[in-house]
Amino acid sequence: MKTTKSLLSLTIATALLGLSASAVAEQTAIEKLQADMPKNWGKWGADDQIGALNYLDDAQALRGVQAVKQGEKFTLQLPMIHGVGPVFPGRVPAMHYMTQDESMYSTGKLDELAGGVKYSDDAVFMYLQGTTHMDALGHAWYGDEVYGGVSADSTVHGHDHVDIGALASHGIVGRGVLLDVGLHNGGESGRLAPSSCVTLDDLKATAKAQGVTIEKRDILLIRTGSVGRFYTDTPDAEWTATTEPGLCYSKELVNWIDDMEIPVIAADNLAVELVPQNIDGVDYVIPLHGALIRDLGVVLSELYWLDDLAADSAEDGQYTFMFTAAPLKMERGSGSPINPIVIK
Amino acid sequence: MKTTKSLLSLTIATALLGLSASAVAEQTAIEKLQADMPKNWGKWGADDQIGALNYLDDAQALRGVQAVKQGEKFTLQLPMIHGVGPVFPGRVPAMHYMTQDESMYSTGKLDELAGGVKYSDDAVFMYLQGTTHMDALGHAWYGDEVYGGVSADSTVHGHDHVDIGALASHGIVGRGVLLDVGLHNGGESGRLAPSSCVTLDDLKATAKAQGVTIEKRDILLIRTGSVGRFYTDTPDAEWTATTEPGLCYSKELVNWIDDMEIPVIAADNLAVELVPQNIDGVDYVIPLHGALIRDLGVVLSELYWLDDLAADSAEDGQYTFMFTAAPLKMERGSGSPINPIVIK
Amino acid sequence: MKTTKSLLSLTIATALLGLSASAVAEQTAIEKLQADMPKNWGKWGADDQIGALNYLDDAQALRGVQAVKQGEKFTLQLPMIHGVGPVFPGRVPAMHYMTQDESMYSTGKLDELAGGVKYSDDAVFMYLQGTTHMDALGHAWYGDEVYGGVSADSTVHGHDHVDIGALASHGIVGRGVLLDVGLHNGGESGRLAPSSCVTLDDLKATAKAQGVTIEKRDILLIRTGSVGRFYTDTPDAEWTATTEPGLCYSKELVNWIDDMEIPVIAADNLAVELVPQNIDGVDYVIPLHGALIRDLGVVLSELYWLDDLAADSAEDGQYTFMFTAAPLKMERGSGSPINPIVIK
Amino acid sequence: MKTTKSLLSLTIATALLGLSASAVAEQTAIEKLQADMPKNWGKWGADDQIGALNYLDDAQALRGVQAVKQGEKFTLQLPMIHGVGPVFPGRVPAMHYMTQDESMYSTGKLDELAGGVKYSDDAVFMYLQGTTHMDALGHAWYGDEVYGGVSADSTVHGHDHVDIGALASHGIVGRGVLLDVGLHNGGESGRLAPSSCVTLDDLKATAKAQGVTIEKRDILLIRTGSVGRFYTDTPDAEWTATTEPGLCYSKELVNWIDDMEIPVIAADNLAVELVPQNIDGVDYVIPLHGALIRDLGVVLSELYWLDDLAADSAEDGQYTFMFTAAPLKMERGSGSPINPIVIK
Repeated sequence: MKTTKSLLSLTIATALLGLSASAVAEQTAIEKLQADMPKNWGKWGADDQIGALNYLDDAQALRGVQAVKQGEKFTLQLPMIHGVGPVFPGRVPAMHYMTQDESMYSTGKLDELAGGVKYSDDAVFMYLQGTTHMDALGHAWYGDEVYGGVSADSTVHGHDHVDIGALASHGIVGRGVLLDVGLHNGGESGRLAPSSCVTLDDLKATAKAQGVTIEKRDILLIRTGSVGRFYTDTPDAEWTATTEPGLCYSKELVNWIDDMEIPVIAADNLAVELVPQNIDGVDYVIPLHGALIRDLGVVLSELYWLDDLAADSAEDGQYTFMFTAAPLKMERGSGSPINPIVIK
Repeated sequence: MKTTKSLLSLTIATALLGLSASAVAEQTAIEKLQADMPKNWGKWGADDQIGALNYLDDAQALRGVQAVKQGEKFTLQLPMIHGVGPVFPGRVPAMHYMTQDESMYSTGKLDELAGGVKYSDDAVFMYLQGTTHMDALGHAWYGDEVYGGVSADSTVHGHDHVDIGALASHGIVGRGVLLDVGLHNGGESGRLAPSSCVTLDDLKATAKAQGVTIEKRDILLIRTGSVGRFYTDTPDAEWTATTEPGLCYSKELVNWIDDMEIPVIAADNLAVELVPQNIDGVDYVIPLHGALIRDLGVVLSELYWLDDLAADSAEDGQYTFMFTAAPLKMERGSGSPINPIVIK
Repeated sequence: MKTTKSLLSLTIATALLGLSASAVAEQTAIEKLQADMPKNWGKWGADDQIGALNYLDDAQALRGVQAVKQGEKFTLQLPMIHGVGPVFPGRVPAMHYMTQDESMYSTGKLDELAGGVKYSDDAVFMYLQGTTHMDALGHAWYGDEVYGGVSADSTVHGHDHVDIGALASHGIVGRGVLLDVGLHNGGESGRLAPSSCVTLDDLKATAKAQGVTIEKRDILLIRTGSVGRFYTDTPDAEWTATTEPGLCYSKELVNWIDDMEIPVIAADNLAVELVPQNIDGVDYVIPLHGALIRDLGVVLSELYWLDDLAADSAEDGQYTFMFTAAPLKMERGSGSPINPIVIK
Repeated sequence: MKTTKSLLSLTIATALLGLSASAVAEQTAIEKLQADMPKNWGKWGADDQIGALNYLDDAQALRGVQAVKQGEKFTLQLPMIHGVGPVFPGRVPAMHYMTQDESMYSTGKLDELAGGVKYSDDAVFMYLQGTTHMDALGHAWYGDEVYGGVSADSTVHGHDHVDIGALASHGIVGRGVLLDVGLHNGGESGRLAPSSCVTLDDLKATAKAQGVTIEKRDILLIRTGSVGRFYTDTPDAEWTATTEPGLCYSKELVNWIDDMEIPVIAADNLAVELVPQNIDGVDYVIPLHGALIRDLGVVLSELYWLDDLAADSAEDGQYTFMFTAAPLKMERGSGSPINPIVIK
């Protein structure tokens, strides 16, 4: 482990050599890759905390409203079951503990409240990204800076900048579009093969096949069919955290997302994107998190349950709808569990 | 503490005396009070898990949509701050822990991901009703049965019946009405005095003063002004968990809620209702939880932040709006944190 | 799920038939098996909370002291590593979170204390039996009663009776004897084969081979070699929670433990005993927990790290020593993590 | 908040000015105070992880053993009660949750194990220093280095160096001496007045009054009487976390502790020392943590329950005994709960 001392002597030596610190620091692959790509830093003011959610203004809420036809609702969170669920390595599924219930009354350990009413109570220990969730803009970065050009030190023991609380206070309401790439490209199973790459062309072809036009500021819901493997016995492949299909980085894709002013991209896998990816011979893990969250302030949202919505859309052909998601206002948090609601 | 043995000998003795168990069991005050009051048990089938949320059908989602005018959003959750927040006795505010952040990369404890992207992660320990939340229908009961007439044993170490997961899967979307009783009755402070009783007449008078008509199946948001005391230095009174103003039980009120088919009642205090109350000389704690949750299956939702919405409504006179709330699908849970969204 | 109502009608019907409840209740296998076996209920008074720890009086502490020769220490807890460790199904290893450290000072998020001192702090979420631990006497039972004949309802949402706090307040100090059955019976690996049965004869033969005499009131440390499999690549077998070798129930063994007034039995596996066992054609899971903890009040203690102590004992031939263990005073707890100390 | 960038430009500018970083960095008060004081860094090798516990060798275990007379035991942990206990600001008392108990069997939610045995299980969320505990040597520091001269970055998200796991693996066994300063200086109440300073002279005078000689390598247990105020209604003063009596820093005291090779100092308050202290007109919080833990590697241990031991010692005049404490082997932890055992 490097000590503060050794780091200090390095920077001093560097200075004495007449070199700027940045000149000698080795650039990472993602820094080179994204060097000429667009950034939204400063676009919405120096104090911007919500990035591409700025696109989700009142007009977008109205556009969401106008997409409603029958009033049918779909809730897109996975079930939260004590100790069970698909999670990224390092996390555990939520654990749920009752703190009181009928057994305490029936054994005389707790008295009924005055008049006779009784109540249960409970607590949960959970990773904020341990179920269907939305990422804060501070959740992923590269180099020394997070979204907005603020030091990555702002993440230390809680996000001082671009935390999930900021997204939660804005509220996510707009027009959503389901892109069922799993159905379009997945063959008989309706699920993309493990480790499949989803490209911009795949998104466009899917939209076309569905007869839907992706409009500016649409919220994209990409169905790969992946998480369904966790819950069902699938003859095609077993679910694992590191073989999920997902979006692949391309400059074309990133520029299109930027041009289209997409505020939120959601998917039914752990990371929206494929993990890992190889770009021009170099290995990357979650490069789109760098390009989208850190540089463009686009919000990523993961582990959606889209199978029911997809089945319904396949039947009635309606792939657009009102979309709402409401992360919890966890101040300094890097993400939040959510239960998105779609109204068709 | 009573042992199983002593309970057993009691029931045996009872049986030998030729009496049914229910004949000798002493009725609680709430059982007597509610004896002739309406119940919705069985109204929506034997397996009903969502009670009055059945009123929130597609038509209500459309009615919510039609209440939207400018597309302005309000998010109604209180801020979740590590270790800080108004909670009912026995609970603690959410506690938030970063599991990784920039400090691990900058000290060489964690390597960047392949390609150079880094990410933060975090976990939370929280009571499910330790911030703005929605109660499950199994959360409160009296006698031996919860909503639907199912044994209260269904609450033991997790709700087998009418858990929050059921409400979460339905999704809450409809037309909401803000009733700013705090502004109407609170004098200069705009907050009801501690321990104030809010009656049906107060609700009706407030609606009238606001120029709004409460319609069937509206979601009611009652502002007392209470929780604002927790966050501000109020000259009028200090916030405490047991002196909050709230709804008072009356048969008139319960019958009106039933007749109006109100699916959800929310408020900016810990329990919607006044704690404790005295009815005809008898002390009760949360009798409305018994009457509304357990008997009618009406959903209660608490600790809302309504001050901003109220200020806006006072200005533009629009007290109705689209309302969405999305509890987490915590299976077997007695409640869930929520961040409700209002769209005006 | 049985409701309270159906249970009630059963007991009433029983009573009307003139039968005692116990006469009609179907006896479980363990109730029949243990029907004629010894119980220590009431032996140390009606309010006894510590069972066989009563044997560990001042004289036994002195006998422990007299076993010390060189003053060499061994600590017998397994390492507690965030998220890693052998646990029984349903538990997770301890999870550890820093709440403050140097990164908060170096990034200016936390000020040094007045004068310049800084400090770190941390929290842990853990199962009380999720590492090396001691069981409370209320932890395991059969029928309707826990140790001492108190209703099993005393376990509900916290042990009112015979909790770990009681054992912790007494303190465990005495003479310990290591019985390295793994070395004696395990062949070249020095580890018993998976699912091996350890009998009373095995214990006696091991003691004899070691040249040690088991005395009355000795604390027994039984090494099977099992948990070592979790930490090492063993060519002989993989570690799994349900194939560990352990003690097998026999009336001979239980009576011998009773006659010898053994206060504590520890082992380097999850349950001291073999899981599961078949006795006279009937399957049992942890029958010795019933016979020893519930009936005799003998304390069981699990997941010990004995390999280092065993290696040392094999070398110097000293298999007896002073033993101390100090569970945490967790009131109402069913167990506690411990780090036992042996002094040779 | 300072960004990495601004810190970097500072060190570069410093270098260009021809000054060493340490020359311009402003020294903190504790750095100046301790500049000429003894350090044990490197005394026991470059890789030393246990500091003054090196003094606790086999000979000291034997000396502890020799202090035993009758075999009487005292356990020194405070009770751990769900949600209740004296804690330092920023921590909460342990919270305890049953995960299964008789209520799950009696309501048919859980089947008995094969054969009929049942068991309870539980989990706890706790701060590692949220009850009677021992500090890791990495827990407190000043400047950029922890004990041993290793970078304070070693504390980031878990102690890579001098964690509690290292102390736990060594085990703490030796001769203990109780110094009942509360009885000696506390007047009728037997408790020192709030915010009282305990000096080296007080320790020596107490030892003399007790007729006991403090020997080299003794483990010191200092009773102030403070924590007893938390558990009893004391007419003399209310317990608060910031008015507890405790040791006061003096160079004389620190040098004496070093000369006497004291391995461990324990007390019945939150910090062993007085919080805060004023030394030569400068305010300090926990300066002894800097001098003892960080510079000398002396182990501090806090929140002991000493009232029962003190009462017994006052009666029989025996103030020396065998002392054992066994922190949990929490790898990377800053401390651990303990239940120390004294044998007289």
